[in-house]
Amino acid sequence: MNKPADQSAFETPTVTTGPLPASRKVYSHPLPDLAVPHREIDLHPSANEPPVAVYDTSGPYTDPSVTIDVEKGLARDRRDWVLERGGVEEYEGRHVKPEDNGGANGKYLAREFPVRHRPLRGLDGHMVTQYEFARAGVITKEMVYVATRENMGRAEAHEDAAATIADGQSFGAHIPEFITPEFVRDEIAAGRAIIPCNINHAELEPQIIGRNFLVKINANIGNSAVTSSVEEEVDKMVWAIRWGADNVMDLSTGRNIHNTREWILRNSPVPIGTVPIYQALEKVDGVAENLTWEIYRDTLIEQAEQGVDYFTIHAGVRLAYIHLTANRVTGIVSRGGSIMAKWMLAHHKESFLYTHFEEICDIMRKYDVSFSLGDGLRPGATADANDAAQFAELETLGELTKVAWAKGCQVMIEGPGHVPMHKIKVNMDKQLRECGEAPFYTLGPLTTDIAPGYDHITSGIGAAMIGWFGTAMLCYVTPKEHLGLPDRDDVKVGVITYKLAAHAADLAKGHPTAHLRDDAVSRARFDFRWEDQFNLALDPETARDFHDQTLPKEAHKVA
Amino acid sequence: MNKPADQSAFETPTVTTGPLPASRKVYSHPLPDLAVPHREIDLHPSANEPPVAVYDTSGPYTDPSVTIDVEKGLARDRRDWVLERGGVEEYEGRHVKPEDNGGANGKYLAREFPVRHRPLRGLDGHMVTQYEFARAGVITKEMVYVATRENMGRAEAHEDAAATIADGQSFGAHIPEFITPEFVRDEIAAGRAIIPCNINHAELEPQIIGRNFLVKINANIGNSAVTSSVEEEVDKMVWAIRWGADNVMDLSTGRNIHNTREWILRNSPVPIGTVPIYQALEKVDGVAENLTWEIYRDTLIEQAEQGVDYFTIHAGVRLAYIHLTANRVTGIVSRGGSIMAKWMLAHHKESFLYTHFEEICDIMRKYDVSFSLGDGLRPGATADANDAAQFAELETLGELTKVAWAKGCQVMIEGPGHVPMHKIKVNMDKQLRECGEAPFYTLGPLTTDIAPGYDHITSGIGAAMIGWFGTAMLCYVTPKEHLGLPDRDDVKVGVITYKLAAHAADLAKGHPTAHLRDDAVSRARFDFRWEDQFNLALDPETARDFHDQTLPKEAHKVA
Repeated sequence: MNKPADQSAFETPTVTTGPLPASRKVYSHPLPDLAVPHREIDLHPSANEPPVAVYDTSGPYTDPSVTIDVEKGLARDRRDWVLERGGVEEYEGRHVKPEDNGGANGKYLAREFPVRHRPLRGLDGHMVTQYEFARAGVITKEMVYVATRENMGRAEAHEDAAATIADGQSFGAHIPEFITPEFVRDEIAAGRAIIPCNINHAELEPQIIGRNFLVKINANIGNSAVTSSVEEEVDKMVWAIRWGADNVMDLSTGRNIHNTREWILRNSPVPIGTVPIYQALEKVDGVAENLTWEIYRDTLIEQAEQGVDYFTIHAGVRLAYIHLTANRVTGIVSRGGSIMAKWMLAHHKESFLYTHFEEICDIMRKYDVSFSLGDGLRPGATADANDAAQFAELETLGELTKVAWAKGCQVMIEGPGHVPMHKIKVNMDKQLRECGEAPFYTLGPLTTDIAPGYDHITSGIGAAMIGWFGTAMLCYVTPKEHLGLPDRDDVKVGVITYKLAAHAADLAKGHPTAHLRDDAVSRARFDFRWEDQFNLALDPETARDFHDQTLPKEAHKVA
Repeated sequence: MNKPADQSAFETPTVTTGPLPASRKVYSHPLPDLAVPHREIDLHPSANEPPVAVYDTSGPYTDPSVTIDVEKGLARDRRDWVLERGGVEEYEGRHVKPEDNGGANGKYLAREFPVRHRPLRGLDGHMVTQYEFARAGVITKEMVYVATRENMGRAEAHEDAAATIADGQSFGAHIPEFITPEFVRDEIAAGRAIIPCNINHAELEPQIIGRNFLVKINANIGNSAVTSSVEEEVDKMVWAIRWGADNVMDLSTGRNIHNTREWILRNSPVPIGTVPIYQALEKVDGVAENLTWEIYRDTLIEQAEQGVDYFTIHAGVRLAYIHLTANRVTGIVSRGGSIMAKWMLAHHKESFLYTHFEEICDIMRKYDVSFSLGDGLRPGATADANDAAQFAELETLGELTKVAWAKGCQVMIEGPGHVPMHKIKVNMDKQLRECGEAPFYTLGPLTTDIAPGYDHITSGIGAAMIGWFGTAMLCYVTPKEHLGLPDRDDVKVGVITYKLAAHAADLAKGHPTAHLRDDAVSRARFDFRWEDQFNLALDPETARDFHDQTLPKEAHKVA
């Protein structure tokens, strides 16, 4: 947040609340103290069909029975789950330092979140992470929660589940007919899935990322040196999850990173990811050479105490790989990758992210922050896809995955970027092989470079395909990619585009119930039940608006 | 055109003219009387790169040296090419009947195009079609023209051509390093490619459709009973080709179909396709049961004399297949398919399109109207994809392809529709097998049904994939699909989306020069040459606008 913002001028973030059209939030209770949400969309009586159940990422904001107060944050139910299984201690925690907010002061300092929660951390010799519990055969509440959530309230397998799975093409994924907590545990224990869930993110509604589950999407938000404020970023987070973002990354730069993140976390029911090197760089005034392990380490602890659920860590960018990018069309385009490359070249030393990787694991384990091993050498152009630099880094990420697992951490792997269609599967298959099936989390990939302004689409094509091939989470791209910073409308278009891509992937993989929503839309279409078609759409507002532009009469909408 | 439109109120269509940013139209002259266009985009001097050559569909409208007069139509150079090879006769032609314009009169009758050209038709025993010439080993001017056009002004293969082809995955396509007229001829003779070019469409800049050439796209326009006028449709056609539509289908319904089409054809440098059954149905006041072979036949001749380049003919919808759709989620969604199904069920007789297929061939051969064998049983929902009905029809289309070839006609095959990703390649492979590699021309396919308002994207995913797998032409889908009629903005979004999908397919197939534009964009990006990035974009206006929304200063744009 870098606009002048003296505290008297700070406005409480206003966020969009209320249910989507014809929708009710429904909770399942697999355990007495777990309330797992999904959304039900009611159809016109003439349809004579039950409501359609859909996955719901929107949190309490769409539940009219919950009073939202952004100044207080969401309810912190999950703290009890963590405490009751033990192995953690509450402690005073790190106090905010001026450099955490980039030295902002006076009217440039964003207001602190009004409530301070003392952090928890894991104790040595005790299990903390979902990976550790899973390996020990323990089913956590988070595992029960995500199992119920994936089933969208269904108490047993859908009758067509086996046939639907058989009709799909999953490329080696094994989506079961029905998700049980035991299945969730086994997938996490195998490293094939993660539940990003920092023990300090007590507001979280857990969610699972793995290729044997529904494909998830991530939306990036974050202020920058140029535009936007805390208020806008909190609003964007709520807006993104309203339309279906399963995860949100806060990529803020500039000043007020700490305070912005706190507002977001305390109000976020979805996992929040960050790239800690961005904040560390602000702490050394943007001079990459001045970064140190100590500053970085302190930033990890700062963010872990706040409750960040996953960290992008570009530990695979090794000194020896930098020269591999020399003949690229677009060199190193990852911000984290180029920061570390600059540091390594300046010091002619191996990356401290690589040399201190085990210590990083130890910190992240204590809070159950998941790794999102960054692809600092991802291609920035289709010309650079699947090259030696990218694949060298991917092999190192595979090596680091095993280290992180041995340390008890949850791990996913980031992927490209820009990849023409015929090279997408090669990339996916190599990731599965090198990284022991750890979940892949890709940006796009963009399948051509010639359509700036439409890169949500160039990348939506690649995203749908790589999701089909086995990617567990798709990081959205908005229409502003390469051109500017996304506003609220861009966030929505990006989320909807990636939601449809993820769903297309689920359908193609043979997910046992993904087709139910498609079929409901199709029947509504065939019956001219316009209202049902709108309400079942990923974006009911736009569907209705487009219809009304040419056929505005009410009479055209009824069955 | 169904708005009241008395002739005094008729406005001459205004169309968008002038070059795209930093672009020049360049003509190659493979023969003294052939001027084959492409577009060159100039880069900033700091780039120290030659201009980037791109395919140009926009016709004379983007050539500042050509005076556009929509009342006169475009220059009719191609008439000489047809006349000089002989085998045709000029004749009086059919005179316009009131029913050709749906009985519109008075203020409801759209003004006739001011100039009347006497039609040509082929003589018995003489070659007329490109297929006939190709089979006889003759290289026509059209073949020379399209060969030059595909090479975009290049006089020889690009130095990296062989390597680029080897790096691609073409699934059995054989794109050569350089396109020669002989190669064009051989592909047409094999039935693998067509040049839609009615001998009466003298304004045409010929273009080739086949999987060993650049993937083409089609934009649908057309007035309806609800909205729009002749002026709007001519403008939409010019607008669609400005952004890259290689072909345009006029799907007008209601009144004034004849006059609307005449204005479009006389001003169109791209092939125009139609679905003649739509007009035939208007001639029987919308009562499908009252259709007759005679009315349909008369409509074919009417449209062939005007110069329509390809006809969608749903001759594969046979009586025996209708029951196969009984258990579908969305039955028969093709308008042509459902018209014919209604007729067959009412009369309990085989479709007259099937029983009279050879006569249809004889008519179309005389004018070299290409077949676009319609997929009247295409799925209208992902649930109905690749079902028995669709595949039964596809097999019949394969049978009819052979009949049409034997009659000397050019043929392409229409395809779905709605297909989840994992069933796309199966559909493509079956088409190639059943139809002897005749070009496939698909609508989308949409890969999920849950995103009305975003079906340009749900289908752009499927389009890019099926284009990669071998489809020769992609029919666009606009954001208004399923919801309403596309306006000018929707047409542009649809065209750009399909252009990027087609290009992604070209890249993946290993087209030898497709990557040059991507690489130029990527270099511009890496060098922060913003102006170059905008100018090289498929949609320079949107790219610039998005950039300026967050970074409006000129200083941010220079190299």
